[in-house]
Amino acid sequence: MEPLITLTTDFGTRDPYVAAVKGVLLSGCPSARIVDLSHEIAAHDVLEGALFLASAIPYFPPGTVHLAVVDPGVGGARRAIVAAIADQLVVCPDNGLIGVIEHAHPAAAVHVIARHPDPRTTVSATFHARDLFAPVAARLAAGTWTIADVGPAIADPVGLDVPAPERRADGAIVATVIHVDRFGNAITNAGAAHVARGAHCVVRDSPLPVVRTYADVAVDAPCALIGSTGLIEVAVNQGSAAERFGIRRGDQVVIIPIETADPDGTGR
Amino acid sequence: MEPLITLTTDFGTRDPYVAAVKGVLLSGCPSARIVDLSHEIAAHDVLEGALFLASAIPYFPPGTVHLAVVDPGVGGARRAIVAAIADQLVVCPDNGLIGVIEHAHPAAAVHVIARHPDPRTTVSATFHARDLFAPVAARLAAGTWTIADVGPAIADPVGLDVPAPERRADGAIVATVIHVDRFGNAITNAGAAHVARGAHCVVRDSPLPVVRTYADVAVDAPCALIGSTGLIEVAVNQGSAAERFGIRRGDQVVIIPIETADPDGTGR
Amino acid sequence: MEPLITLTTDFGTRDPYVAAVKGVLLSGCPSARIVDLSHEIAAHDVLEGALFLASAIPYFPPGTVHLAVVDPGVGGARRAIVAAIADQLVVCPDNGLIGVIEHAHPAAAVHVIARHPDPRTTVSATFHARDLFAPVAARLAAGTWTIADVGPAIADPVGLDVPAPERRADGAIVATVIHVDRFGNAITNAGAAHVARGAHCVVRDSPLPVVRTYADVAVDAPCALIGSTGLIEVAVNQGSAAERFGIRRGDQVVIIPIETADPDGTGR
Repeated sequence: MEPLITLTTDFGTRDPYVAAVKGVLLSGCPSARIVDLSHEIAAHDVLEGALFLASAIPYFPPGTVHLAVVDPGVGGARRAIVAAIADQLVVCPDNGLIGVIEHAHPAAAVHVIARHPDPRTTVSATFHARDLFAPVAARLAAGTWTIADVGPAIADPVGLDVPAPERRADGAIVATVIHVDRFGNAITNAGAAHVARGAHCVVRDSPLPVVRTYADVAVDAPCALIGSTGLIEVAVNQGSAAERFGIRRGDQVVIIPIETADPDGTGR
Repeated sequence: MEPLITLTTDFGTRDPYVAAVKGVLLSGCPSARIVDLSHEIAAHDVLEGALFLASAIPYFPPGTVHLAVVDPGVGGARRAIVAAIADQLVVCPDNGLIGVIEHAHPAAAVHVIARHPDPRTTVSATFHARDLFAPVAARLAAGTWTIADVGPAIADPVGLDVPAPERRADGAIVATVIHVDRFGNAITNAGAAHVARGAHCVVRDSPLPVVRTYADVAVDAPCALIGSTGLIEVAVNQGSAAERFGIRRGDQVVIIPIETADPDGTGR
Repeated sequence: MEPLITLTTDFGTRDPYVAAVKGVLLSGCPSARIVDLSHEIAAHDVLEGALFLASAIPYFPPGTVHLAVVDPGVGGARRAIVAAIADQLVVCPDNGLIGVIEHAHPAAAVHVIARHPDPRTTVSATFHARDLFAPVAARLAAGTWTIADVGPAIADPVGLDVPAPERRADGAIVATVIHVDRFGNAITNAGAAHVARGAHCVVRDSPLPVVRTYADVAVDAPCALIGSTGLIEVAVNQGSAAERFGIRRGDQVVIIPIETADPDGTGR
């Protein structure tokens, strides 16, 4: 089977950065199949990248090499690492990009990149994806390097602060929107454990029914549901909850358990 | 030859949905070559997706498996299908996505997906692309399932109403813009049969010459021509007809046959 | 090794143009691995495409076939060519797309496309990427055609005027912004030879330190540096220089050598 290398970056594709990375990967591992996951992570947004990887990596086969670069600290003091996660390898800057997936799939090992596959390479100060991460990923994919070859193991990869839902005195859950997707669905940090069918979510003072799927409410009607990653999301059937309610990342959503009839917690 | 699976969705690539689908495909068919056709179909826009597929599928080799998901009804009552079209397979929701290509390439067979390749899978209510369509597409691509394995044949796949051009009493053709492309070309539903060289198109009261290619008129000059899919389009050489004329999908364009000298049909 | 074909276009991916090209490539060369470089080159922007190719092609392995189409003159008098550059082949319109890479990697040969791989094909007047370039690229990738098979060699491929930096009487360099990237970095046409560490760049009357990497200045602070393609760029650490200074392509940046203490050239 040809080696698989996936790419997740905040580079976009209008600039030649992704193209150069692909050239380096294919020069270093000529038989590789390259699979684009995303180049549209928001610029410098490590949390968005970390959430993305946590939703994608678990579906890939063992042995996949993931090159993930959202790297605002490029050229500075941050380390470069390779992490063994879910029988796969992630090559990335040590800035929290693996901080979300690690909750469900702790890394079996994390090694700091201390060697360059080709010591004669001039490594630029601003484009380690091309000059360092890609050559390393190519070696790993080709099987000519193992994770142990890149450098010593470390025990302290940089973590990531992901907001957790909070429980109010009245039993309601205050969740935080961690992502708004292309459809305008607002995904929160609260999971299935926080809500039962029949509960309500309250967004901007509007109570929303918790349903099974978008089509369970009328077209253009709002709802809440357990989304495909197991998190509670606010949605509008065939519309945009983000537009309807003006929701943005960081906003709060209140989840009222079934037994509670006091959506705003005021006792009225 | 490694199996070919193409992807056409309205998911965008900023969210992790396409990435998860690719992971499932590669886990289910490890040798697959995955080819992105588009993830930029407008959200929930089945007609746009159907027009897209009709322009793309005919160019692919026999045996290609196309995974196409524009699925506003996900989790509801709509069926999931596999269609055999032009010696290829299309895995998609039964909502009209194959409704345009069927005009030129009637499906040899359409089967409803009634089995899951891995019955232990928990199928989410909101992400059938990952949880149902991709596992089925992987089996079909790997050759471990044929179309008959997915479920029973059906004779009534959902169709799609595509507007047809209309002929006015004076002989002119009233065409409808069905797509505006990235360059601002406005593609209509009228085909080569509706216009001869020398005819005029009338857009917003402006008569436009019908030419062979954009470069047949001056830079920034408007024109009409038979586009690459055989449909009449309104264009501006190296500019945008959509901006010039404020054209949007659904707008009308009048095509005046050569012998007519009455562009607005008023007899003036 | 499976043949490699890369794609660089200004087609976007919302329209079915790239998809049709991929179908033709895979029909003509069924074992090909197709690698997307970009479909987001600005519409009709040959200079942007030429700069892109010059930054990408040098990283690819020998034998790669690059299909590059930014083609405002499609269907007109411009020629179609195949160029042998850096042990690779570039299939493109003859409009200057190879005009930048040729500075560093002169073409070993350029041949005009004078034959069609399948003479029965009807070549549209508006979509040569699908109807001419892709069939030729497929043959070249499959190895059933060499560059000599496409048609006669030519000695006069169309060049491209790329602005060069100018030296003022006071020794300062007046550079021109040739590209603004996704991060808002403004890349100029001046190279490392034009600036030493310790020099200053002057943008909109603001002198900026020339540093090694973005992280050498505080978050949100502006700087200038030698970017990853060897060109001087104006940047803001984790921010956008384009937004901060309102920089657009074509704007000027002044580079003051170390020994000069007269940033605006007025003698004050």
